[in-house]
Formats: sequence, structure tokens, C-alpha cells
Amino acid sequence: MIGVLEKFKALAVDDAPGQEGRQAAVDLSSIRRGDPLPGRPVDFSHGDVDAHPPLPEAQAAFAAGLAAGGSQAYTEYRGALSIRDEVADHLADFTGASVDAVDGLLLTPGTQGALFLAIAATVGSGDKVAIVQPDYFANRKLTAFFGGQMSPVPLEYLPDGPDAGLDLWALRAAFENGAKVFLFSNPNNPTGVVYSASEIASIARLATEFGVTVIADQLYSRLQYSGQTFTHLRSAGMPAEQIVTIMGPSKTESLSGYRLGVAFGASDIIARMEQLQAIVSLRAAGYNQAVLRTWFNEPDGWMAARVTAHEAIRDDLLRVFRGAGFATRIPQAGSYLFPTLPDLAVDLRSFVRFLREQAGVVVTPGTEFGPHPNSIRLNYSQDHLAAVAAAQRIVQMVDRYRA
Amino acid sequence: MIGVLEKFKALAVDDAPGQEGRQAAVDLSSIRRGDPLPGRPVDFSHGDVDAHPPLPEAQAAFAAGLAAGGSQAYTEYRGALSIRDEVADHLADFTGASVDAVDGLLLTPGTQGALFLAIAATVGSGDKVAIVQPDYFANRKLTAFFGGQMSPVPLEYLPDGPDAGLDLWALRAAFENGAKVFLFSNPNNPTGVVYSASEIASIARLATEFGVTVIADQLYSRLQYSGQTFTHLRSAGMPAEQIVTIMGPSKTESLSGYRLGVAFGASDIIARMEQLQAIVSLRAAGYNQAVLRTWFNEPDGWMAARVTAHEAIRDDLLRVFRGAGFATRIPQAGSYLFPTLPDLAVDLRSFVRFLREQAGVVVTPGTEFGPHPNSIRLNYSQDHLAAVAAAQRIVQMVDRYRA
Repeated sequence: MIGVLEKFKALAVDDAPGQEGRQAAVDLSSIRRGDPLPGRPVDFSHGDVDAHPPLPEAQAAFAAGLAAGGSQAYTEYRGALSIRDEVADHLADFTGASVDAVDGLLLTPGTQGALFLAIAATVGSGDKVAIVQPDYFANRKLTAFFGGQMSPVPLEYLPDGPDAGLDLWALRAAFENGAKVFLFSNPNNPTGVVYSASEIASIARLATEFGVTVIADQLYSRLQYSGQTFTHLRSAGMPAEQIVTIMGPSKTESLSGYRLGVAFGASDIIARMEQLQAIVSLRAAGYNQAVLRTWFNEPDGWMAARVTAHEAIRDDLLRVFRGAGFATRIPQAGSYLFPTLPDLAVDLRSFVRFLREQAGVVVTPGTEFGPHPNSIRLNYSQDHLAAVAAAQRIVQMVDRYRA
Repeated sequence: MIGVLEKFKALAVDDAPGQEGRQAAVDLSSIRRGDPLPGRPVDFSHGDVDAHPPLPEAQAAFAAGLAAGGSQAYTEYRGALSIRDEVADHLADFTGASVDAVDGLLLTPGTQGALFLAIAATVGSGDKVAIVQPDYFANRKLTAFFGGQMSPVPLEYLPDGPDAGLDLWALRAAFENGAKVFLFSNPNNPTGVVYSASEIASIARLATEFGVTVIADQLYSRLQYSGQTFTHLRSAGMPAEQIVTIMGPSKTESLSGYRLGVAFGASDIIARMEQLQAIVSLRAAGYNQAVLRTWFNEPDGWMAARVTAHEAIRDDLLRVFRGAGFATRIPQAGSYLFPTLPDLAVDLRSFVRFLREQAGVVVTPGTEFGPHPNSIRLNYSQDHLAAVAAAQRIVQMVDRYRA
């Protein structure tokens, strides 16, 4: 079983969001400083769906799916066609390029499910995969699991400016060196930056030139802040058979508890993803699929109100962190913030643990996203006042543990 | 992408249950015989949850999960501990050996999800895997997907008798030849036979002697017909760290639309399964997990009534098929029936298609389960009268296409 154990080494989840409860007890008393900081606990490792609840209509849509009975329980592996029809229309409108409901769209158990299947369907053992640093931690883990080799592409995200900061020369170099797949999130997780139209055009051009398949994780692309423009790679002129886009209603729409996602684009890749889904989980839970009928179908003003609420939290947290001198890019979409902390007297892992134990604040260490040992990621889709108070406790804790 | 494409060849799903609608149109008119047979269509490829509905309490349990909000939406990857606690107690009672809710139990998106994770967590590239023939088609596909090599172990299921008919010499030979993992369903899918206490004892003894990990898929083990005894491998004395048992409420309990399953046993394997689940789908849908509170918690008499209803359908279908001279083992548990058809003038794939197109009857070809080109599998969890009429149409169609 050596081979299997080796493969799983890259998948450790103890530091992953939500798994803190399973960490082994370690005695850190010799480096602990100060007393507990009072305040309402905030778990920034994921959004708070109680503070930003899902659309009430979701429950009714689920009930309708359940009432439909067997036909909704046992759909095609890629999901019920009538639901795919509706979703395809919305996605075409949103992304500016047509979506084939029959052959070019797959419903999955969450956006994570879509990402897993897309990487499995495109990355073979020894294949080179271009991956942005920093980017969503599962990208690296999935690539490693399928035997792919990561070609890192830096994102110089810290300077606010018109571009996200993708190192296009490094991207070209990765493609020249044989990368078969390019995998990136837009808006970027963990920084919240959005790739500019010019960057997206460059990615499309390079992917076309080198025949690279691109997996674009656009999970957060609906939550765009005021004045933001968003360019969808799939409408940027690259060959349709080279791109799969991934989205889902888990974040902005707070529907994570239903585990729903979609992958759309290249029909050959979608077909392989369905083949694999048939043995991974059969399908997105049948009744849950019906909840997708509420997606892109929210009442007028619902999404605008959600954006406004998150923009206000973003602005307050930026004030707290920038006021303390932590270099932080302004998130342009989504609800992630990725401040850089000053040098600390303890390692990041211990500091993150002290944040949890002493300040009641859960964050995700930057090392989960790449070589970022001074950064922490916050999902600020939280109760507004609690989030601001928790950010202030983070600043206090940094002061306490400063090198 | 050659490597990836190669890997996916084994995963074709066009002949899989429920995917018939995606099959390419092929002109079979030159070998078609006779006219359509009227009758209510029956899809034997999966159970009919409208004919055998889920417990009404499931919907209320889901609603309670939804009402719990964020804590139920974002559980540990292995599932909410309070639900694992309840389920572990029921599973220990049912299987006769303790279940560790903290480290030895994982909730998954369906039993398929559990099977996928269990195989991924135990089978590495080049590893030999002992697989029963016939057995559930995903076993072979998953083994191939992870680069494992199948060592077939015949099941001589046709003679009714005290044993299921496992070829124990072939099993020993597979273990002697280096099989690392043994994977089997009990009751067997597609035949419905149950392994005898003596066979289970032999499996436990051999697995212990050779240090083989066993994945026991007991999805249907609650639906036992009158007079049947069932021996759980996990209580048969083999080392606890060598066995993972898989179950779920999708079949007998008709909860497939919620996509829920469980894997329990060896804590090291469960830990790896959780690591992988974190990047495959994160978790079984949070709100859906709450439905497991109804499992093994049905009102008095509910399960007995379900067994009685299925036993009556079984008996009638057996009468139809045996009356027509089709060799068929008596299913001892579950709701699968695997009759052997006489030689036909057309290949099995075409015959299965004619059954669908001319007789409105969907069945799964025996070739999905191993080298069984004369067999078809029926899931007879259907409307009783419609199932009997459909079985009679199968007999008529066999007569029509007889060699």
C-alpha cells in the first residue's frame, strides 16, 4: 500500500478550513503570550450562511424536487435536462458565450466536485499543470493526487492597479515547458483580485497558441463590487473545446449546504467528467438539483443588496488591516481578503492556532495557498460588526506576537 | 492528454443504468423482429421510489437540518459528529461490532461515494484487487481508474444452496498471487445471493492470513427475506484495521435522491477517505446529512412491510422467469434478480435495446457485471403488477429473438 500512502501525503486536511477540531493537541504553552481576548467568535474559514442567508425560495425549490419523486431522484449523471436547460440559458447570458445544455453542461456536488472532475478529466500522471500562486489550495492537492507536476505562475497581487498581477512571462514559460493544463480562479481565491480584460486576452492568446486546456474557477464571479468589470475567459476568443468554466451557488448565494456546482464548456471534457461522476457519486443529489432553478433567478435587488452588504464589510476590514500597516490588496469581487502580516515571533501555524484559542478567530494560513508564510485568508461573508471586532482582535494578536 | 484518455476508456457509461437516453442512435431495423408490445413501461435499471416511497419523516429531518443553518451546512468533511454518533450506535447494533463515531465512520454522498473513496484510499497503481464475478460494475471501473489490476474470483451463484457459491480456491489463489484488496458486495449485486456464515468465515480467515484489506459493500443488507440469516464480515473475527464496510439508505429506504452513504471500520483508511473527500466534494450535502437521523429509526413494522412487499414481487418474477426456463438464483436479500436467458439470435446489447424500444422495459446487460453475455439484471423494487407484466413481456421478447 506504499503507493497509495505516498499519494495521500499531499492531501493532509488538518490545516484545512473547518477541520480545526481534528487537530492533535500540541502543547504551545511555552510560546503563548497574554490572556484570552473577549469577543464573539468568528470563523473566517468559510462564509456565515446565518448572517447572509440563502434565498428562502431555495427551500421551496427543493420541496418541489422531492415532490417530483423518482424522476428527480434518478436523473442522468450529468443532471436533469430540464434544469440544465434553464441553467444553460442563464450561464450563456452571464458569461457572454453560448452553453450547450445537452452536451456542454454538467451538474456536480458543489463547485469542489466540478473542480475535482475537471482536473481528473484533463491531468494524467506526469502532466505539467500551470497553477497560480497564490490560488485555491485544492488546485495543488488535486494536481498532485492525479500525478501532475505543478508549474507555478506567480501573481503579483499586492499593488492595487488595473491588472490582477499575473506574471504573463511565467505563464508563457510554463506553456513553453509543456504545461497541458492551466488552472486558475477568477476572482482569485485568496486575494479577491479580478483579472483585467487585457490579462484575460493574454491568457486566451497563450492557451490558443500552445493548445493548453484551461480550467477557469469562477465560483465568486457574481459578487462584483461597484465599478468592477469582469471578463469571462470563455468569451475571450479561445477555442471552446479548450476551456471548462466552473461556477456554483455555494458562496454568494449561501447554498453550500445543498452541495451544488456546475461545469460548462468543452463537450469532450464534460463527457469524461460525467463518466467519472458516475463512479464517484453518481450525480449531484437529485432533489437538491432542483434548487438550481432559483439560481440567477433571484428577486430584483437581491444580488445588489448582497453585494452592498459585502462591500461595506470589505471596506471596514481593509481600514482595520491597512490601518495596522498590513499590506492588503483591495478585493474586487468575492469575499476573500488576504492580508500580509508583519514578521512574527512564532510560526504561522502556531499563530493561527493562538488566534483561534485566544481570540476566538479562525483564519486559514497563507501556506495553504502557496509560499505565503506571512499571510492569512479571511472569508468576510460574516456578521458585519462581529467581523470588524474580530479583525481588531487579529491586529491586537499580531502586536502581541510581533517579532 | 493520451494518458488521461486511456484511463477514461474503462469508464464508458452509455450502457450504465439510467444513461440509455444518451446512447447514439444506431439503425437496428435489419435485425428487429415484430411489433411493439403494449404495457406500462418499467425501468428495472433502478428502484422506483414512487412505488416504494421514502419514509415521510425524511423530509422533516431535512428541514430540521436546513433550519440548523451554518452548523449543518459546514460540517467536518466526514460529517456532523452528532449525526455520526447516532448512526454509529445503529450500525454497531446491526453489524454486531463496535463503530467508532469519531475516527471510524465517514458520511459520504451516496454509497457510490463511499465505494469510490474506499477504493481510492486502498488501491494504488499496479496493485492487484480481487473482484467477484459477477459483481457491481463500478468495482471494476474504479479499480481500473486507479490503475489496479483485477484478479477475478468466480461466484457460482446458479445452484440454490446454503452457500452463495464463492470459489474460495480462486480467492486464495488471488491472495497468494499478491492481491492487496478484496472487494465484494453482500448481498451480491446483481444476483441477490447472500454469503453463508461459513463463506464469510473463510473470507475473514484468508484476509487475515494474507493481510488483505477487504471492502464489504453491504448496501442491501437490511432487506433480508424470510428465514434468511446474514453474517457481517466485520464481526467475523478479522482484524478491524483491515476492513471497511459500506452501507447507505438509498435502496431499501428509497432515499437515493438525497445522496447519502456511510463507510465505517479501519480508522486509517477512513482518515484517507476523508482527506480525499475534502477535494472531491467536501462532504455529503450538509442539510441532507440530517436525513440519516431517520435511518435505522423507522417506525415499528415499516421495514417488515417493505421486506414483505419485495418478497412478493420476487416470488412472482421468479415464477415468470423460471416458468420460461430461464435459470435464475433465488435472491435472498436486496431487490436484484439476474436471470440467464437462452441463446438469442441477436447480441445482448441489441436485445436490451429492443426490450426498451419494443417492450418498454429497461434492464441492465449482464456484461456490465462480468463475463455474463446471456444475463440481464433487474431491480425489482417496482410497482408489483407493472413489474410482473413487464417480466412477461421480457419472456415474450426472448421467444421472439430466440436463436
